[in-house]
Formats: sequence, C-alpha cells, structure tokens
Amino acid sequence: MQKQDRTAISPKRDEDYAEWYQEVIKTAELADNAPVRGCMVIKPYGYAIWENIQSVLDKMFKQTGHKNAYFPLFIPFSSFEKEAKHVSGFAKECAVVTHSRLKINPEGKLEVDPASKLEEPLIVRPTSELVIGEMFSKWVQSYRDLPLLINQWCNVVRWEMRTRLFLRSTEFLWQEGHTVHASSEEALAETLLILDLYTKFLEEYLAMPAIRGKKTDSERFPGADETYCIEPMMQDRKAIQVCTSHFLGQNFSKACDIQFLDKAGQRSYAWTTSWGMTTRTIGSLIMTHADDDGLVLPPKIAPVHMVIIPVVHKEETRAAVMDYCSSLKNRLEGLSYEGQSLRVELDSRDLRSSEKMWQAIKKGIPLWVEVGPRELEAKTLLVGYRDKGPKEKTTLSQEEFLAIAVEELAALQDRLYEKALAFKTKHTVKIDSKEAFYDFFTPKYPQRPEMHEGFALAHWNGSAAVEEQVKADLKVTIRCIPLEDDGEGAGTCIFTGEPSPRRVVFAKAY
Amino acid sequence: MQKQDRTAISPKRDEDYAEWYQEVIKTAELADNAPVRGCMVIKPYGYAIWENIQSVLDKMFKQTGHKNAYFPLFIPFSSFEKEAKHVSGFAKECAVVTHSRLKINPEGKLEVDPASKLEEPLIVRPTSELVIGEMFSKWVQSYRDLPLLINQWCNVVRWEMRTRLFLRSTEFLWQEGHTVHASSEEALAETLLILDLYTKFLEEYLAMPAIRGKKTDSERFPGADETYCIEPMMQDRKAIQVCTSHFLGQNFSKACDIQFLDKAGQRSYAWTTSWGMTTRTIGSLIMTHADDDGLVLPPKIAPVHMVIIPVVHKEETRAAVMDYCSSLKNRLEGLSYEGQSLRVELDSRDLRSSEKMWQAIKKGIPLWVEVGPRELEAKTLLVGYRDKGPKEKTTLSQEEFLAIAVEELAALQDRLYEKALAFKTKHTVKIDSKEAFYDFFTPKYPQRPEMHEGFALAHWNGSAAVEEQVKADLKVTIRCIPLEDDGEGAGTCIFTGEPSPRRVVFAKAY
Repeated sequence: MQKQDRTAISPKRDEDYAEWYQEVIKTAELADNAPVRGCMVIKPYGYAIWENIQSVLDKMFKQTGHKNAYFPLFIPFSSFEKEAKHVSGFAKECAVVTHSRLKINPEGKLEVDPASKLEEPLIVRPTSELVIGEMFSKWVQSYRDLPLLINQWCNVVRWEMRTRLFLRSTEFLWQEGHTVHASSEEALAETLLILDLYTKFLEEYLAMPAIRGKKTDSERFPGADETYCIEPMMQDRKAIQVCTSHFLGQNFSKACDIQFLDKAGQRSYAWTTSWGMTTRTIGSLIMTHADDDGLVLPPKIAPVHMVIIPVVHKEETRAAVMDYCSSLKNRLEGLSYEGQSLRVELDSRDLRSSEKMWQAIKKGIPLWVEVGPRELEAKTLLVGYRDKGPKEKTTLSQEEFLAIAVEELAALQDRLYEKALAFKTKHTVKIDSKEAFYDFFTPKYPQRPEMHEGFALAHWNGSAAVEEQVKADLKVTIRCIPLEDDGEGAGTCIFTGEPSPRRVVFAKAY
Repeated sequence: MQKQDRTAISPKRDEDYAEWYQEVIKTAELADNAPVRGCMVIKPYGYAIWENIQSVLDKMFKQTGHKNAYFPLFIPFSSFEKEAKHVSGFAKECAVVTHSRLKINPEGKLEVDPASKLEEPLIVRPTSELVIGEMFSKWVQSYRDLPLLINQWCNVVRWEMRTRLFLRSTEFLWQEGHTVHASSEEALAETLLILDLYTKFLEEYLAMPAIRGKKTDSERFPGADETYCIEPMMQDRKAIQVCTSHFLGQNFSKACDIQFLDKAGQRSYAWTTSWGMTTRTIGSLIMTHADDDGLVLPPKIAPVHMVIIPVVHKEETRAAVMDYCSSLKNRLEGLSYEGQSLRVELDSRDLRSSEKMWQAIKKGIPLWVEVGPRELEAKTLLVGYRDKGPKEKTTLSQEEFLAIAVEELAALQDRLYEKALAFKTKHTVKIDSKEAFYDFFTPKYPQRPEMHEGFALAHWNGSAAVEEQVKADLKVTIRCIPLEDDGEGAGTCIFTGEPSPRRVVFAKAY
C-alpha cells in the first residue's frame, strides 16, 4: 500500500468537510469566534480579502452611476411594521434594543437601568429597505430626482441559532444597494444590471462559475416581486446563495410612500430594487478553491500576490541573500497587475524556510519564490505555484521571472476558474425521473452523511406543494430557475407528469 | 446706509450660528435627520467627504504598519464589566439589546417577543477596548506577536440626549485603533505617532490648524493613563475635540488579561493604546471653513474639485459649447492632483447657469469654470474661486488654465489654512488675571449669548477643584495642556496664585 501524503490541513475534506472548513479558516488566520455568541471577528488577513472585494465591487457600482451613503443602524417599530411580508420574514431573527442606560446595582453588579426603558423599541437592522424607503420618500419628489441609485457598506444583524464563520453569523458585513425608478421596466433593468455585475465579479475576480436565475415564490425575499440570485457549487456539491438582486415592484414604495410627479404632472408610486453581497462570499470562496493544504486564493483578490522566502543555511551568506531578495521585491513591486502594483512580501522572519513555505501555502498566497545561495550565485530563483502543490517548483532566471510574473498570476487565476467550472459541470446532472432524483440526493458515502451527487437539473410543474414535499423528504430546494439554458426548453415535470416550461436547479444548500 | 449683500445661507453666522450650521448642511446635501431620534443619515455628498477622509487616513495607518480588522457590534455584560472606570464612563449612554425576536400580537400589532429575552443583555459598542482586548488576550502569547497594530472602521452608538448632525449623534462612524506593545515606552511612542498622523491629516488635508496637547485628569478617556487630543477652533470661537489618542498603560491588559512571554521567558502584562477619529470631523470641517454662502471644502478632501458650467443663451450655440466643455473636462481629468485624477464635473442639467454656479458655491466646490459662446470663440474660460466669492472671476485661455489648474487648487488649499490660522491666532489670548479671564468668557454680544472671545492661555495650578469652579461658573473647560509652547514656561496660577508649570488652553467646547 502506498504511503499517504501528509496534508497541511487535518482532517481532509473527505474525512470531515465541516471541520476541514474551520481548520482552513483557523490556519489561514481569517477569522475567529467572538465572545458574543454567533458573532465573528474578522482577522487582518480575512479583512484584507474583504477590502479587496469591496474595492472591486465599489468601483463597479460607481462606474454604473451608484453613490454610497449611510443610513442608521436602528429601525423604529413604526417604520418596520410598514411592509407586512417583510416583517413576517424577519421578525424571528431581530435583535431588539429596549433600554439606553446601565447602572451598578447595590451589590456592585452591572445591570440594565429599568428607568431607561425606551418608549418605542428599536430593531437592529437586518436589512434597510424600510428605513431607507422612509428617507427616499422625502428625497424623491419629481421624475428629475430619478433614478436614485444608492449603495451602503455596513453591518447587519440577523439572530441565528446555528452559526458558522462567514457562512452564517448573527452580525455580518455587506453592501446593500437601494434604487428608485420611474418605471417597472427601468427597475427590472437595474435588477438585472446588478445581477450582471455580480456575475462578472464572481467569475472574473473570485474565479467562481455562476449559475444565475430567479427564485421561486417560496424562496423569494420577503416583500419582493422577483428575486434573482447566483448560486455557486461548493466542493461538497451543495449550493450557496452568495448574492441576490430584488425587483421590489411598488411594494416598498407604497409602504414608504415614495411618490413622484411625472413629466405630465401626474403623481405615481415609484418602482424600487434592492441587492446585496455579504462577507458570506468569503466562505464560498474558501469552499470553492481551498484544498487539503489550506486556503487557495485567486490572485485578483489575494491580499498578497507572492511571498519571497530567503533560504539561509549559513550566517555568512545571509546578507547577500537578503540583499538579492530585497532588490527582487522592489523590482516586482514596480510591476502592475490589474491596475495596481504587485503585492509582494519578503518573509524575513527568523524561521525555517520550509516553515515559511507551508505558511504561505496555508494562507493561499498564489506564488512563492525561494532564493538561497545557489540561486543567488546563478541569478535565478525557484517559483512555487499554490495550485500545483509544494513539489512542483520551477527554476527561472530573475529576468525571466520578472518578465512573466504578471502572466503567471493571470494563468493561475484562469486555472482556478477552469478547475471550479469542471467540478461544477461534472456534478450538475440532468435528472428525468422522480426515482433517479431521490436516488441522486440519497447519501451514499458512509463517512459523509451530508454528501449528495450535486445539482439536479429537472423539470418541475411550478407547484409549491412539490417544492415542499421535496424539501421535507430530502432537504433539497429549488435554488433557482436559471436565466440561461441549453435551449432544451419545455418538458414534463418528473414529480407530477404535468407540463414544465423548463428545467430548474435542485440542490441542498447552505 | 449701504445695501447689504444677499448671501446664499440664511441666517448668517452672525445672526444665528447654530441655525446657520444646519442650513449649510441642508443646502450642501450633506446629511439628514433619521427617523430614529438622534441618528443621522449621511447623504451621498457628505459620505463622499467621509470616503476621502477614510482613504487618506487609512493609507497613513497602513504605511505605519497598522492593519484593519473587524470586531463585533455587541459586547456582552461580562466583558464590559471588566474595567471599572471604563464602565462608569459609558454606562449612562449605552444602547442595550435584551431580546432576539418580534411577534405579532392578537391585535395584529408588532411587539417584542417576551420569550426571546436574552440570558445576558448585550451592549451596542460605544467603543471596543474590552471586546478587542478579549481577542488580543488570545492572539498575544509572546514578544514575537508584538507590537500588534490594529485598526477598525465601524459604527458606534452612544445614547445622547441633545444631538446635532455630525457633531453629536447617537450613532456615528469612526475608526478606532487598538495596539499592544511590550513596553510602556513603545506604547507611549505609538500614542504620539498617531497624534502626529492626526495633526498632519488635519493641517495638510483639512486645512485646520491644530492645538495638540494632553487632557487633564478630569477630561481623560475612562480607563486611560493619558489622553492626547487635538482641539481646533471653530468660527464661533469654541473648541471641538476631533480626535484623541490614548495611552492606556496596563489598565486594559490587566482587565482583559493580555500577557506575553518576553525574551527572558518572563510573563508580563502588555501595554496598550487606543485612538479614534469620527464623522464629527466633518462637522468641524464645516465650522472651520464654511461661510455665509455655504460650505467651503479644502480641495484635497473635496468630492469634486471643479465644476464646468456651460452658459447657453441660444439653442444654436448649445452643441458647440457642450463639445468645448466636454473636451475641457477630458483634458482636466487627465491632470493629476495629490496622486489622483482631477475630479471634474460637467453640469449639463437643464438649469440656468447662475443657478448652477450658486449650487456649486453652496456645495463648497473649490473652483468653477464658466464657458459660453464668447469663451468658445476666444478659446478662453471664466474661473471662479470658492473662497473669493461669486464676483471675483478670472478670464484665462484654455491652455493657461490647464497649465495652472492643479496649482490653483493647491493655492486655494493654502489660503484656507492661512485664513483659519489667522482666525485662531487672533482669538487665542494670553490671560493673566482671574478678572480678565471671567471677562473674556462673559457674553458680550446680545444676539449671540453663547459667543465668547476665544481660547484663553492661562496659568493653572493643576487643581481639579479650580477646573470644576470654572466649569460651573462659565461652562469653560481646560481643552488641553499643549504639547508645544512659545518657551515661556512656568508662571503663577491666575486663580490661586500658586505656581503653575505652564499655560493651559481654556475654552468653551462642543
């Protein structure tokens, strides 16, 4: 029997996927559990990924005419009550502020001061449609004020019972866009424009292939007319909703009284949209690319593009090796990738070079470069690629590497996308009978009871009752009605034999 | 009697300073009151100023080795209780979360679900020393982990009774830095480094002359050993604390158990600092530079550097004028100011050009450029300067303007600083008797009961009782014990006749 390779992350994905995920986060120093149940601390390396995500998305939003603003953390009851479906969708997960002071009691213990009870409790925003809508009703008077295209970067709170770092936490960070339009068509066009931006962002920056589509009635955002979403496949073949774009019709403009005078002098309710992407995206990024050696980051979003590791066996060569590495770092930083200077680190810590390499691997740094006395003498270097593993290193002259370093990053970015696409394609299957469907979603791996075969593309008659049954039997839901298809079109519902306009995507999901 | 000039803001500063301030904010569209009492909405133009502030400060912090991270919004009681002075400093202004669900009652009204009462209430962070300290105690083990230099950009909540946009609001945005060091000297050096960065930021970017110094015992941050601050003078001659840098000694490391093994293998408590700058800075920016025509923005921080205003009297010249303006905009955007492209707007709205000019003035845009048929023919343009008023415009050839546009911005930035410095210098007076001191702070302007003469530099014996008396009599406090002085040194306390090591700054303050 062949000796198994040691991996940097234990357990491996195949052994315990959930535990593997936690270990990847821990070893890459991305995040930590907070002292408050269900909340997380995003550590500097994890936050640097979020900053890169913010920077790319923010530019996309601004280039399409959106402006950032900031709205309050607290929503009064009287605002929140205005949209009935919205309220019932969020009521069970709201943090509520009821008091405004603390006091030290006679025993010297801290307690809530009962005298500070608020007349009207405040809800910590789970999302901001209603409080923003209330402001929009003041800001929008005439067609000249439209479209109003606003985005905000902020924290939101949804009280969760079972939480996991990045994937589901009581507090998370996100951007929420909120726009107002003069017509239904314009609002729908905005909803789809944003879906396109998100798709571009996921595919071109996060190297995550996207299935885009519409939600069914039962999975829609509370208060929306239509919810569009993107649902990538994770390595355990489950789906995850990473972003949504909602066409809100006139529901919120009626709830918040957003009316405008059109060119003819007629008063009408406006049409609104909302859309968001969250720190959950970092969880999906991990579960798309990471492997049994730890995090793998697409270069476009990596906080560090490459790390230079000096290899010093003897003290007398240290100064010369360090000089060579410093000058290499300076020259690399003079190169431009994606419109910015290369992000290069020189790891000069007092540690063994193999330890430094493994730390770089576990942090998902795309490339690493080793330089020892031999490389110094030959004016070469040894390049390692995160996706190829620690053994497949290439010797290049310094000049060669400088000439191709940026191309190497672009090539790695492409390889990650291709690999994720191949995985998704392999595990996305057309299913044409109810029996095959139930079999597809029945666990077959004794060690991994949650594991199933992947995404099922199946015909469905549009009935909520069928959705409910499948969910009850298998914990499987319709992730979306895809926007794009292969032209196959109509068919027969595998559950009822009734006509189906098109295949939809069924999967287990986070 | 001379006819008074009409001003864009009514009332004028001299007529009603507080109301003038609100009007400047309203006409420049910086912010709005939120539906929640005491909270504010930062509108796109105001938020763009905040983004520019963030961008400059964030770069300064990163260049000095600080990294961003994110810590939770909620602090459990058990964490908050750990530092006694800190608790008593903040207890009276804490929003407290006590429940996690809402429900619809039998009357169909929304109410807090009593069954969701939390075992331990949560405090919405007023500042994060304790929750961050708790994480730091896990992260810091050895001297190798130090210094730990962390910053976070976030929202905080301090329940305020009397609120004013930007100056004092229940929720505000800020950055809070938190660092851990191996020695008292290093922590103190960090505290002062940050004070230097803040000073540089205020003086060079916001064009606000700074008086820097230490707080007295009674004005110190709850739990700090020393608080350093910057206190600029506003146009009503009051002081405002815009940023603070705290040397926390070992108080929080003991409260949160932040210990490390030093090189000798000895365990000791670390030394910590914290420091912050908030959206209040925008309020102080307004009150430093704005005039009776509205906002005035230093170019380095202005969302728009210049606006081009086409002047079209006859339809037949419209196309040619617009072409000229577009090409001018493109050429201006090709210029670089402070390392970025010039931010130029072309105001092509269907409004009268004088209306456009007044809007640009009210928004504090540093330069505006008017182009009509006459300018088109002569290949010239008319330049207006925000600080010189609407009448003092200069005709320049297009080429001349392109050659000096960046210098004009830099010159305007300098003029704003010089003007603010002259104002501060004029109203900062050495006072050498108690009688003169009381007279200095006694209102003399019937229309402006709050108005006083400015900053008093006076000798003080260091006694808290004196501070208290002055505060009770005049609402005047010691803003700081200045770091820099003119070399005068020791003297005699004007209140007690006792020795005084140096003059301190007395003023009324926001």
